[in-house]
Amino acid sequence: MQPFPIYNFSAGPAVLPESVLRTAQNEMLDYNGTGISVMTMSHRGDAFASILHHAEQDLRQLMNIPNNYKVLFLQGGASAQFSQIVLNFAHGFECVDAVVSGNWSEIAYKQMAKLTQTHIHLAADGKRDFQYKNVPPVASWDIHRDAAFVHFVINETVHGLQYRDVPQWSADLPPLICDMSSEILSRQVNVADFGVIYAGAQKNIGPAGATVVIIREDLLERCSSHVPDVWNYQSHVQRQGMYNTPATYPIYMAGLVFRWLQAQGGVESIQKINELKAKKLYDAIDQSGGFYQNDIYPDARSQMNVVFRTQDIELDEKFIQESVLNGLQLLRGYKAVGGMRASIYNAMPMAGVDALIEFMQDFQKRYG
Amino acid sequence: MQPFPIYNFSAGPAVLPESVLRTAQNEMLDYNGTGISVMTMSHRGDAFASILHHAEQDLRQLMNIPNNYKVLFLQGGASAQFSQIVLNFAHGFECVDAVVSGNWSEIAYKQMAKLTQTHIHLAADGKRDFQYKNVPPVASWDIHRDAAFVHFVINETVHGLQYRDVPQWSADLPPLICDMSSEILSRQVNVADFGVIYAGAQKNIGPAGATVVIIREDLLERCSSHVPDVWNYQSHVQRQGMYNTPATYPIYMAGLVFRWLQAQGGVESIQKINELKAKKLYDAIDQSGGFYQNDIYPDARSQMNVVFRTQDIELDEKFIQESVLNGLQLLRGYKAVGGMRASIYNAMPMAGVDALIEFMQDFQKRYG
Repeated sequence: MQPFPIYNFSAGPAVLPESVLRTAQNEMLDYNGTGISVMTMSHRGDAFASILHHAEQDLRQLMNIPNNYKVLFLQGGASAQFSQIVLNFAHGFECVDAVVSGNWSEIAYKQMAKLTQTHIHLAADGKRDFQYKNVPPVASWDIHRDAAFVHFVINETVHGLQYRDVPQWSADLPPLICDMSSEILSRQVNVADFGVIYAGAQKNIGPAGATVVIIREDLLERCSSHVPDVWNYQSHVQRQGMYNTPATYPIYMAGLVFRWLQAQGGVESIQKINELKAKKLYDAIDQSGGFYQNDIYPDARSQMNVVFRTQDIELDEKFIQESVLNGLQLLRGYKAVGGMRASIYNAMPMAGVDALIEFMQDFQKRYG
Repeated sequence: MQPFPIYNFSAGPAVLPESVLRTAQNEMLDYNGTGISVMTMSHRGDAFASILHHAEQDLRQLMNIPNNYKVLFLQGGASAQFSQIVLNFAHGFECVDAVVSGNWSEIAYKQMAKLTQTHIHLAADGKRDFQYKNVPPVASWDIHRDAAFVHFVINETVHGLQYRDVPQWSADLPPLICDMSSEILSRQVNVADFGVIYAGAQKNIGPAGATVVIIREDLLERCSSHVPDVWNYQSHVQRQGMYNTPATYPIYMAGLVFRWLQAQGGVESIQKINELKAKKLYDAIDQSGGFYQNDIYPDARSQMNVVFRTQDIELDEKFIQESVLNGLQLLRGYKAVGGMRASIYNAMPMAGVDALIEFMQDFQKRYG
């Protein structure tokens, strides 16, 4: 046993609520009196059908998803969605509009160009214009009216950037497709503004292995039968999410997380806590007299992934080493960016943020 | 608690060893003294790197995988592989040879034709020639010398068919690609006969969500950069299986299953047990005086999925209902086929087969 609580600041796979892990532990060998584990039950049996149904219903309730949207639990993470959205929706269109605002949207932009004849148009370039210190404002996006869709990543984990105002979207524009992996369920959004929302589970939903896709029904008509069924949204919808064996256990875990979030008061409540956690942490950075730095434009600072550094690479390394010894895990920044990164998703309790701030202040006293 | 042991005959997701589930249960909140769950650890940290490394090494040892083969743990199940093998390997070739010997190889044949210009040639048709009661003999396959590869499914779960002799393959022929999902690790195979072996985890490896791909190095040169990285074998190999976030928990579970199998004496030992389990069950069917029937050619009967039926659909239904009450779960046959199916993968103990046979005999006494 550790002598102090462990707080896990991993960017993903990320911390899960302890009560969720305890439920999973208790039910590991016997789910709900079935005598078998969720891992070993047929995905086509009644027990798993009920798990999947409730997971979907609870997600619909939490996000207030309109009835004309379908919900799927797929595999392959956001990386697979980069290609699936083009395969399914771009056929017959001259271009796709891609907003680049950080590491992941840049990867998406490059990957979308594969396996398609459709031109992938760079609708905004946050690297060129802001060196990834700010997000390109929505009003500045160069949208083609006849584009197949507009793609963007609403929160960038690597650079710690976020569209703090959720885009409001006109029905006259091409459908807006959003990678919401690293902030889904962290704040209220109006699903009706989006054509598609997708999210890898391993930040705010559950363990790695499941990918949530929320898709407006009319877009399903675009899914060509030339797209292999395993990557075809329409095929999955037509088979009620059972085209092939889904990642049953990650979906079960997602369902437990959804119920936990409902017990916290839902998205509206967790949003207030998330805002407070982020404010405390950015305040601690800003009030350190320059010892800790975050150079993201204030209006684009991520509420989920707080990046910071000292002015000394060796000191950053010392911070990371010592933080682990104090129960603060996985604070190392993304390799290409360096420094520190505290991911403070829904399941990170306020006490974890407080412990981090206390450690930061203590560290500064010793090395500042 | 149930008054009798539960035996789970699901075709997949399928039974896992109880000791494996207990280890997972014990480690749920604290893996190996890290203070965090395997589900919540970064896939790029030391702890998960070690889990992945040992899973690969143990699989290599169990299957005696030669050094010129790479091992990947991907997502999407066998269904995703149907398309990925064509995307990665068929470019520049005039045709692919597809053997159809049952439900899954038929689906593979149809899905492979999507997203490609390459002709998918039906090299053998077990439906036309044998009504899926026998597998087309390897010697009868109509192989094109210049095909990109030859694809087949070595065990068919739905129809209960298996290539009981593992094909031996000449280096002069196009590489042999095998869907081994429902029999991997159940018997010894010579990996060097195959260009690629792939397997969805949810039968003999672990829970749903991970897909093992074993791939001969020279084939990686064919993987075009036009294939999105998330579906590109070469990209995954170059990033040591970390191109994107893998399904960490299913991989951890697979690693536990591999260690369990080593403790059973490895594949050689489990093969003997599997042969005995299958023999007992087929003998019980054949010696029932026609009350139970299996009409697969004896040399093609699956050692993993034993299909059988009575001569009466209503009696089949009664069998399924009553078997559940006796702790024998998920014996219902695939919907399109009907009847019963007992999947007796590695983790099904002999006692489970004995209990099924005892129930079959008792049922026959009462209704025969």
